Amino acid sequence: MQGTVMSGMRPTGKLHIGHLSVLRNWVMLQETYRCFFAIVDWHALTTSFDETEIIQENIRDMFLDWLSVGLDPAKSAVFVQSHVKEHAELHLLLSMVTPVSWLERCPTYKEQIQELGKEGKDISTYGFLGYPLLMAADILVYKADTVPVGKDQLPHLELCREIARRFNYLFNVSLFPEPQALLSKVPVIPGIDGRKMSKSYNNYISLTDSTEEIRDKTRMMITDPARIKKTDPGHPEVCTVFVYHGMFNQEETDDVEIRCRRGEIGCVACKARLAQRLDQLLQPIRDKRNELMNHPGQIHDMLKEGAEKARQVASRTLEEVREAMRI
Amino acid sequence: MQGTVMSGMRPTGKLHIGHLSVLRNWVMLQETYRCFFAIVDWHALTTSFDETEIIQENIRDMFLDWLSVGLDPAKSAVFVQSHVKEHAELHLLLSMVTPVSWLERCPTYKEQIQELGKEGKDISTYGFLGYPLLMAADILVYKADTVPVGKDQLPHLELCREIARRFNYLFNVSLFPEPQALLSKVPVIPGIDGRKMSKSYNNYISLTDSTEEIRDKTRMMITDPARIKKTDPGHPEVCTVFVYHGMFNQEETDDVEIRCRRGEIGCVACKARLAQRLDQLLQPIRDKRNELMNHPGQIHDMLKEGAEKARQVASRTLEEVREAMRI
Repeated sequence: MQGTVMSGMRPTGKLHIGHLSVLRNWVMLQETYRCFFAIVDWHALTTSFDETEIIQENIRDMFLDWLSVGLDPAKSAVFVQSHVKEHAELHLLLSMVTPVSWLERCPTYKEQIQELGKEGKDISTYGFLGYPLLMAADILVYKADTVPVGKDQLPHLELCREIARRFNYLFNVSLFPEPQALLSKVPVIPGIDGRKMSKSYNNYISLTDSTEEIRDKTRMMITDPARIKKTDPGHPEVCTVFVYHGMFNQEETDDVEIRCRRGEIGCVACKARLAQRLDQLLQPIRDKRNELMNHPGQIHDMLKEGAEKARQVASRTLEEVREAMRI
Repeated sequence: MQGTVMSGMRPTGKLHIGHLSVLRNWVMLQETYRCFFAIVDWHALTTSFDETEIIQENIRDMFLDWLSVGLDPAKSAVFVQSHVKEHAELHLLLSMVTPVSWLERCPTYKEQIQELGKEGKDISTYGFLGYPLLMAADILVYKADTVPVGKDQLPHLELCREIARRFNYLFNVSLFPEPQALLSKVPVIPGIDGRKMSKSYNNYISLTDSTEEIRDKTRMMITDPARIKKTDPGHPEVCTVFVYHGMFNQEETDDVEIRCRRGEIGCVACKARLAQRLDQLLQPIRDKRNELMNHPGQIHDMLKEGAEKARQVASRTLEEVREAMRI
């Protein structure tokens, strides 16, 4: 094993094809790293403490999606954050050595308060202020040295390193590693309307979409507006369908481009090819998901075992932390 | 049982006679309330994260003192805060609904930062900012309705009520009671030098002081400076020894006062009478302490059982909290 990886996602429910590249990256990582993948439900509370009705359903949906894409509980610890209480204890202990100013300085802090403030939502809570610290605890409790993140998360990871460094210095130990980012080039996938793919825009193709849904959504995709007849030469560089071909149908991308520019393939046919390809891509994911859903008891057991696996490592870290702090 | 009491002390080590009235109050409360008494070691970290060398010794000393004075593990849950992880989990969950501004507004917050700042100590940490919230979690995790406090703690208790109210409102439950203060008139005991009794002034009489130590310390006490000969009329109102008689030797107080004013009793004799009385007072406490210290294994077991007893109640509360928050 090359090292220890920790990563997580908030339980936002069913995932869409925009999440595939992150998940595929995780699936690869579990072959060469000791991996911890958490559905971070406590984090969901930092911005949505008043909208928790569907959180359990979201957790279940996300877990099913993760396994369907290929996360393997036999290889990785796949679990729900709140099932491993050590995250809360380490968060509390680290809070004692983390200056408030470090948290206030986090670029997302004031930004997000303002942004959600515009929607009439007040999230200026102690929990929201401490959310990068909770994230640091999530990582450090497994002594992870490698964290696959997007660019936007780099300041949080830097804070995590600062906290690790300060703890090691104050208690004269080398207990925590300073986790490094594994920057994955995550392509931003446009939604079917060309905007960012997002649940709130309702412009996504979900991992669980059926053949029909994929076909219907693909049909609605925005193509080159200048193209009227199918024999008009197309401009793939302004076409969302072409972006998708480039991402999900690389074998045919060149062919599609040439034929589009020459006016040899119409948008309807081009979309049908994409739909077929997406369906092929999602078929095994859907199959795996259906198989899992036929055994609800098994899902419960897997979540329990995942938490147990994580807890074994986390509780050992906490023992060391308590010893270092003499608490 | 009249209700549920929760109180705690930071593990500052051996207690002195200034603590007796608070402890005696607790001993009384355990007869009529369901009581939870915690040595709040996590709180010690909020201001002293860098001085934890003697924390375990301090915890042990405090626990011994508590039992020696009469706290009864058969009647109350007597335990160490950090042994009951539910405090940390509830602290984290409540942090999601607690506005930062409520914590910043706490009168002690900026005061203590400034005060300790003068000593060159920087405690402006996230943990220190959150310490009244941790206190709220300590109380609410047992659904305590009654909290014996001094006047200085009233703002913290008010905050605890606000948090309980907000939680109940947000999640549409009546899970937490709004704990009320049981204001105990705690007499402020001067140290043997007339200043406030305090460890840092080294002017205290410890609960574990021997007969000789009590005699020596009493001898050093400040009396009426205008009195030169023992037949001079004394002024009890300016005499620390007299304050002690009033507190610990009420039976003889009137007699001592009259004879002092008349110049019929000298300071040496007056101090000897006080020393004898204090020795009588502390003798059973010392005896109980020695008895306990002869069974170190028992102490360990009692702490474990105390935590177990507390955890039974705390874990039930957490189940309800998680259900209310749907987490």
